[in-house]
Amino acid sequence: MSVEWLDEVRWTSDGLVPVIAQEVGSGKILMFAFMNREALRLTVETGQAVYWSRSRNKLWHKGEESGHVQKVHEIRLDCDEDVILISVEQLGGIACHTGRHDCFFRKLVDGQWVVDQPVLKDPQEIYRHE
Amino acid sequence: MSVEWLDEVRWTSDGLVPVIAQEVGSGKILMFAFMNREALRLTVETGQAVYWSRSRNKLWHKGEESGHVQKVHEIRLDCDEDVILISVEQLGGIACHTGRHDCFFRKLVDGQWVVDQPVLKDPQEIYRHE
Repeated sequence: MSVEWLDEVRWTSDGLVPVIAQEVGSGKILMFAFMNREALRLTVETGQAVYWSRSRNKLWHKGEESGHVQKVHEIRLDCDEDVILISVEQLGGIACHTGRHDCFFRKLVDGQWVVDQPVLKDPQEIYRHE
Repeated sequence: MSVEWLDEVRWTSDGLVPVIAQEVGSGKILMFAFMNREALRLTVETGQAVYWSRSRNKLWHKGEESGHVQKVHEIRLDCDEDVILISVEQLGGIACHTGRHDCFFRKLVDGQWVVDQPVLKDPQEIYRHE
């Protein structure tokens, strides 16, 4: 497959592009992360979201430890060609490393950030290594 | 009102935070932009989205020229406290400067970015100065 479409993305000086992951069906925003060229290529090839972890400085196949893989249904690029939106099916129903459905579980209410989503699974259980 | 909630946001070294704007009702992602502390404060105070324009290096009250104001229904912060998600009502039904409903009008199809949203209004009309 041609990779011209990868050249059309305006990568940052660090070679990254911000990515918004939205859940198919619910339309909820699950998380926000980054991809580099290789991550985006792998995402398309495998049909599963692969990000670039800036903290670990390596490719991050979402769900590689937790099993909470994201099956990609659609990939979109914005008007400035510098933001990507992916529609995904979230396996396990948990996208956030805190064990919640998604990462946006704090809502601003009367000048306070209020948590309004339950922890569905203890993160220690999610990331327990055998 | 206390501004402690503003201190809880992890601003970038440039004093910004990335913001995802989602349409109330449709759940569609309208656009991705940045806010600084002042923009976020004004967004809450006025109930309308105010961003920081990195290209123009100034506060950007969305819709100030076009009338395409975003009425804010909800503001959320993510697990790492460094990304904001706002739910908005998009006046005029056009969020993108190209005159389309939203900025994510390019879809990846067989290795090509295909535009699948119509231009609802000519940008020259949207931004015409009297």
